[in-house]
Amino acid sequence: MRRFATDKTRRLISGLTQSLPSFSSSSSVAGSSVAAMSSSSSSITNPSPVTVESINPKVLKCEYAVRGEIVTHAQHLQQELQEQPGSHPFDEILYCNIGNPQSLGQQPITFFREVLALCDHPSILDRDETHALFSSDSVERAWQILDQIPGRATGAYSHSQGVKGLRDSIAEGIAARDGFPANGDDIFLTDGASPAVHMMMQLLIRSEKDGILCPIPQYPLYSASIALHGGSLVPYFLDEATGWGLEISDVKKQLEDARSKGLTVRALVVINPGNPTGQVLAEDNQRAIVEFCKKEGLVLLADEVYQENIYVDDKKFHSFKKIARSMGYGEDDISLVSYQSVSKGYYGECGKRGGYMEVTGFSADIREQIYKVASVNLCSNIGGQILASLVMNPPKVGDESYEPFIAERDGILSSLARRAKTLEDAFNSLEGVTCNKAEGAMYLFPRFQLPQKAIKAAEAVKAAPDAFYARRLLDATGIVLVPGSGFGQVLFWMI
Amino acid sequence: MRRFATDKTRRLISGLTQSLPSFSSSSSVAGSSVAAMSSSSSSITNPSPVTVESINPKVLKCEYAVRGEIVTHAQHLQQELQEQPGSHPFDEILYCNIGNPQSLGQQPITFFREVLALCDHPSILDRDETHALFSSDSVERAWQILDQIPGRATGAYSHSQGVKGLRDSIAEGIAARDGFPANGDDIFLTDGASPAVHMMMQLLIRSEKDGILCPIPQYPLYSASIALHGGSLVPYFLDEATGWGLEISDVKKQLEDARSKGLTVRALVVINPGNPTGQVLAEDNQRAIVEFCKKEGLVLLADEVYQENIYVDDKKFHSFKKIARSMGYGEDDISLVSYQSVSKGYYGECGKRGGYMEVTGFSADIREQIYKVASVNLCSNIGGQILASLVMNPPKVGDESYEPFIAERDGILSSLARRAKTLEDAFNSLEGVTCNKAEGAMYLFPRFQLPQKAIKAAEAVKAAPDAFYARRLLDATGIVLVPGSGFGQVLFWMI
Repeated sequence: MRRFATDKTRRLISGLTQSLPSFSSSSSVAGSSVAAMSSSSSSITNPSPVTVESINPKVLKCEYAVRGEIVTHAQHLQQELQEQPGSHPFDEILYCNIGNPQSLGQQPITFFREVLALCDHPSILDRDETHALFSSDSVERAWQILDQIPGRATGAYSHSQGVKGLRDSIAEGIAARDGFPANGDDIFLTDGASPAVHMMMQLLIRSEKDGILCPIPQYPLYSASIALHGGSLVPYFLDEATGWGLEISDVKKQLEDARSKGLTVRALVVINPGNPTGQVLAEDNQRAIVEFCKKEGLVLLADEVYQENIYVDDKKFHSFKKIARSMGYGEDDISLVSYQSVSKGYYGECGKRGGYMEVTGFSADIREQIYKVASVNLCSNIGGQILASLVMNPPKVGDESYEPFIAERDGILSSLARRAKTLEDAFNSLEGVTCNKAEGAMYLFPRFQLPQKAIKAAEAVKAAPDAFYARRLLDATGIVLVPGSGFGQVLFWMI
Repeated sequence: MRRFATDKTRRLISGLTQSLPSFSSSSSVAGSSVAAMSSSSSSITNPSPVTVESINPKVLKCEYAVRGEIVTHAQHLQQELQEQPGSHPFDEILYCNIGNPQSLGQQPITFFREVLALCDHPSILDRDETHALFSSDSVERAWQILDQIPGRATGAYSHSQGVKGLRDSIAEGIAARDGFPANGDDIFLTDGASPAVHMMMQLLIRSEKDGILCPIPQYPLYSASIALHGGSLVPYFLDEATGWGLEISDVKKQLEDARSKGLTVRALVVINPGNPTGQVLAEDNQRAIVEFCKKEGLVLLADEVYQENIYVDDKKFHSFKKIARSMGYGEDDISLVSYQSVSKGYYGECGKRGGYMEVTGFSADIREQIYKVASVNLCSNIGGQILASLVMNPPKVGDESYEPFIAERDGILSSLARRAKTLEDAFNSLEGVTCNKAEGAMYLFPRFQLPQKAIKAAEAVKAAPDAFYARRLLDATGIVLVPGSGFGQVLFWMI
């Protein structure tokens, strides 16, 4: 089955990296859902000014598997379960299609929520009852944050990069993490990491002749964003046999191949820890990547949103900026963007839409352009900005919240590690299933050997075998996972 | 001066609506700021892989005046004032460049903030002290909202259109406002209205041959978004002499003109109440617009974010959906998108980044595509979603918060109305200045007759006369406004 999926992927991608001659396909995402979703519009009969044939073909081309057809089907089943309990062989839908821990019962970190609540309603900060409800350091932190916001106005648009004081405290957190200086002026706070990824794609991609090197399997945000901005995804392949290893020689081969087709390759995306593959890069591998990007003139786009999610003792997170600086490379040597998000780690605050990118090694005039793009959406949400500053500066020894914070954090991380290991073992004990070690992130990416009959049955309904399997699994168990072909490969499972 | 600005605008726009042959200009936005902003990167000397010549020309082309050069200069002055008090003839910077009321001291609505704080930290909902700090209906509302969110998980990604229960309550609010049914499945919750505008532009624009009809003067989000998505802005001109009247005959002329140049015009943007011009459309004018869009096969993009901001007794807000439905036009007759935001109205919660679009009259397969684009960013921030549901369903008679809410709301709205009138009168009492009636929104758009010497002085420094004036005003008084040429016209001033 892997061969199948990989061949399919290569075909898909080679289509992407060629000259994009037509955009006639792929209107299937969220397919059957919307008729039910919008009964009000299903009766349209006269010619509408907008048809699938007349919209932006880049939108048609874009696919986003983690919220695609399987998820839409799951939402239908969920509705059916609500309307007719007992109508399916399961009582609830288990959404393992995306890293959304709080939807699966993970509790938020108390200190973070205390500070957010106080910043939302500062007029209770001075009240006696507040001290009974909130920790003293959350009250203190809320005051600190309010003082960083001009006029203490949490309801005002901030600077388009985010509140300066919050960016400065994020930079302090980065410096403490890396042991190298960081600058609040390099931080662009965004509504989660996704808009920051879009911003860089928008900046770098001029046409389908511009390529972005992406790992396969990849988090489909990248393929979706590249498609929406009209560029070409240049794949490099993570090697399942070596624990999703990244081979610079393969990346170089893919780069040369793309260049020989006339593409200008502008950037390399690295996701570390890996999404959806869960591996953690070794330090020397990271150094080789930095060296490669510097030599080849590529922007290094480092997705580091799982930096807190490492579950094995022999691996550690190192930011690419730390690696580059430790190699002696500074601002003049490498253009580097590091993405971080409040949605992952032990915090898992997906709904708060907080995140940032740290942008280094770009000239002042390019920074102006990034700032301009940021300014068109005015600013990211202030709650997300505050939370980003908190995750990079959690309570410290001596703070009232420190011990409960550590207990909550470690409880979540050890539960994630335990579940990763349990799933990994379970997969490897199943016949016809193998799975690499879960080193980090929130995902496992097992390999299923499907029997020929299943593959034929899938072909008969014109489905990819893995999509067919995922659909059958959902119908039988209520478990939602994403077919590996959505990432360019096999099957994945949330911890 | 108006002639100058208008001619300049027409040149600018005629460039836009032609074939976009080159993109060599406009790297000036945020110009002098970024060197100071990123001292760390100012020393780059070796060839970077990313230069202004090698980035996406659509990004270069994009301009966003309300956060442009004047604002950047103001931020510098502010920094100088902090470092050296007394270094300028004023003590503070007054940002009138954008509708950002809480930055100017407007207080948030207590009930809204209570509910947000409780949803951020639900574990206090059951505590006795909470009842001393929060109104009983805010506690009740927080419970209602939590019950609408699957697993009460305010930290989870929601459905990509937003939490279903919140969308349903927004639809109830719309139905109550309009007297016509609304459907929660038609609502797409977004991080403020801006991303919703981008989504529709992304959907509709295929190339520079696709045009979008926009009012001039316009809120530059529209020109920026059209530029970023590579389309052509087709201007129609609001007539200052008739209180920024919208003449269908002019719109029709512009449409025909664009078509004769080979453009496919896809949509008409209407901003009502007007931004930055502050007028409120008459009902029969709205009916004519609906009729025109229906007849010409245009999507009607209705920016209705100032729906609560009307300051004259003889005008009332009517949504375009209400107008269309009252004309007997349903889903099959007109494709209509209505934008609403938590940033405006009496709430002014810009930093919360909440908003929605109500999408009606599109076929199911187009809705799928809109959903797909929404899903690539997963969901909008939950705090913004909650706030959007609150502004569409504020406290009702009998609720504990009702009376204080009404007092706060009316206090803000009457203060805005008073300031609008004060500014309008002040402008009209100045020599060489005239200003239309401030009917709604948050802006005044006065007309300045600058002396020839000022125009010559501006020319000498290669500045537009209005930008020159705005810069001089800022340097002399600390007041930040936006040169009218940023909207395609003269000068504007926040109430």
